[in-house]
Amino acid sequence: MTPLNFDAQMMSRCLELAQRALGQTAPNPLVGCVIVQGEEIVGEGFHPKAGEPHAEVFALRAAQARSRGATVYVNLEPCNHYGRTPPCTEALIAAGVRRVVVGMVDPDPRVSGQGIERLRAAGIEVQVGVETEACQQLNEAFVYRVRHHRPFGILKYAMTLDGKIAASTGHSAWVTGTEARHCVHQLRAGCDAIIIGGNTVRRDNPLLTTHGASDRNPLRVVMSRSLDLPAIAQLWEVQIAPTLVLTETGANPEMQQLLREKGVEVVELSSLTPKEAIAHLAERQFLSVLWECGGTLAASAIADGAVQKVLAFIAPKIIGGEMAPSPVGELGLTAMTQALPLLRWRYQMIGNDLLVEGYLQP
Amino acid sequence: MTPLNFDAQMMSRCLELAQRALGQTAPNPLVGCVIVQGEEIVGEGFHPKAGEPHAEVFALRAAQARSRGATVYVNLEPCNHYGRTPPCTEALIAAGVRRVVVGMVDPDPRVSGQGIERLRAAGIEVQVGVETEACQQLNEAFVYRVRHHRPFGILKYAMTLDGKIAASTGHSAWVTGTEARHCVHQLRAGCDAIIIGGNTVRRDNPLLTTHGASDRNPLRVVMSRSLDLPAIAQLWEVQIAPTLVLTETGANPEMQQLLREKGVEVVELSSLTPKEAIAHLAERQFLSVLWECGGTLAASAIADGAVQKVLAFIAPKIIGGEMAPSPVGELGLTAMTQALPLLRWRYQMIGNDLLVEGYLQP
Repeated sequence: MTPLNFDAQMMSRCLELAQRALGQTAPNPLVGCVIVQGEEIVGEGFHPKAGEPHAEVFALRAAQARSRGATVYVNLEPCNHYGRTPPCTEALIAAGVRRVVVGMVDPDPRVSGQGIERLRAAGIEVQVGVETEACQQLNEAFVYRVRHHRPFGILKYAMTLDGKIAASTGHSAWVTGTEARHCVHQLRAGCDAIIIGGNTVRRDNPLLTTHGASDRNPLRVVMSRSLDLPAIAQLWEVQIAPTLVLTETGANPEMQQLLREKGVEVVELSSLTPKEAIAHLAERQFLSVLWECGGTLAASAIADGAVQKVLAFIAPKIIGGEMAPSPVGELGLTAMTQALPLLRWRYQMIGNDLLVEGYLQP
Repeated sequence: MTPLNFDAQMMSRCLELAQRALGQTAPNPLVGCVIVQGEEIVGEGFHPKAGEPHAEVFALRAAQARSRGATVYVNLEPCNHYGRTPPCTEALIAAGVRRVVVGMVDPDPRVSGQGIERLRAAGIEVQVGVETEACQQLNEAFVYRVRHHRPFGILKYAMTLDGKIAASTGHSAWVTGTEARHCVHQLRAGCDAIIIGGNTVRRDNPLLTTHGASDRNPLRVVMSRSLDLPAIAQLWEVQIAPTLVLTETGANPEMQQLLREKGVEVVELSSLTPKEAIAHLAERQFLSVLWECGGTLAASAIADGAVQKVLAFIAPKIIGGEMAPSPVGELGLTAMTQALPLLRWRYQMIGNDLLVEGYLQP
């Protein structure tokens, strides 16, 4: 007898498979696929990156003839259009599968439901909505991008229990413990870009890589209007990871040249705001960007609508400091009742620190 | 058959009884007592306030003749000395009890263990150390006072997820939701005094009562060097709760007179520091004081060793503000590695807010 939660188990397996390509699929979603005969998995696959076949194709290849009469699990509705690859619906129909279980429908309102319709029209039983919340969460950046045509923004900061991201001197190494820092490295692995401001380069000289949590490093992005940046910085070592400096048209040509000679990409925008930065990164097909900046840029990013999710690491310690910086600068809110609520928030221990995460009102 | 955790259950009942006198026993501890024959409770009692009989006496009175051969549960070692009341050890021996289960020994090293010895010498079986952690926690202020001869200090604050206790304008009503505020009212009910600075009076005009969470209100204490205080304030309405203003010798005689005319007690100290304030409150036999002040006074209190425990309510919202105040002012710590760690910390949801609590290094 098939266990009651068998469908949920198989969908969780799809999500596991999908995550193998974490941070590598932009602008495509993370998709995993499992093909089952009875209770036996006869094929698995995931979408590795844009331009390569979809998860269903890899799973069908693995299952070969055993896909006939099988049940197919996939966390996102199969595509029904010709893109860089032929539609997965046709491949599933041709393989003779009996049933398809879909985690969530395609978020694009222009094509949403069409894949399911096509399968049903071909006589395949389709079930929609298994582990939907987990499916939505895994692809929250993709969903956001499809609906808003720009990358999903995550603001991450680490502060003490008295709300400081550094001592009065600016010293901040380290607020949290190793487990929380490793968690940040994993978070970076799932993002396409990390953004900081010039202040953070000058003060912290950060590396901003995944530190081995992934084979891949996201694009490191520095926003600097003045280009008053150090000539030597870890971020300019582009053999480790690529770096993009965003600035305003005509700013500091000498520094632009110096950076380009080091292999750093420099792009001049007419106006250097978080909104413009995000618009530029949207053109690069990015799904998600991680704001790891100080309070001033964080406040601008929030005000510009460039932050959808907040991850606050809270270390159980008190540093004090009248002038010690806190994570979010001026938002112009004058009454506590105007504070921006965090929605669907949750918390967990990460090592000896607390992580609070949630979403800003869309 | 007696359940395995019967002793623990009875000790928990002692703690419940003890808490009925929360905030009313200073300088005495919170003590509850249960007398059991077989599995039947035949007597209960708690210590209601200093000068009144101890918990054991009330329980023995309730049990009458049924205390003979009974087991007595009490969360703190019975006293063995003549104070305002005769020793409980003698009362237990005279009642002919068979067994005494003690939650924790007396924290005073000068008398610790003597009550237990006396009972054992009289042929009573004594077991020590049931639910000890809960017993220690309930009387943590008493234990601290016995060992350090001054009241236990608790710093409580409520901040946004970006570490602000108010907007840039100073507006702070409210950071947290009703459940967290009710939790603070209960916390006040368990303390002997609440301390704030003159700034908080000027800016917030707080009431600082238990708002009905208890019949009793703690002493409201204002520390003000200048006595530059408003002539009308909720704190001066002493028919609601008593108020003490601590200032420096000779400060603002007109204001002192005005306050005294309103029934506010004014005490001049030679130097108005948290340390001196605590020393003064120690003379009043207080067990615990709650710091509900702003960041400047909170930092002084921490620096003066007047804070042993921290309760941080964190609201899931972002207010921002370059100049918005954070909970702890200048501590003179220049590197993040010098931050004061919170020990034995834990966290819980209170309504839609998070409460993080823990202890500063002694």
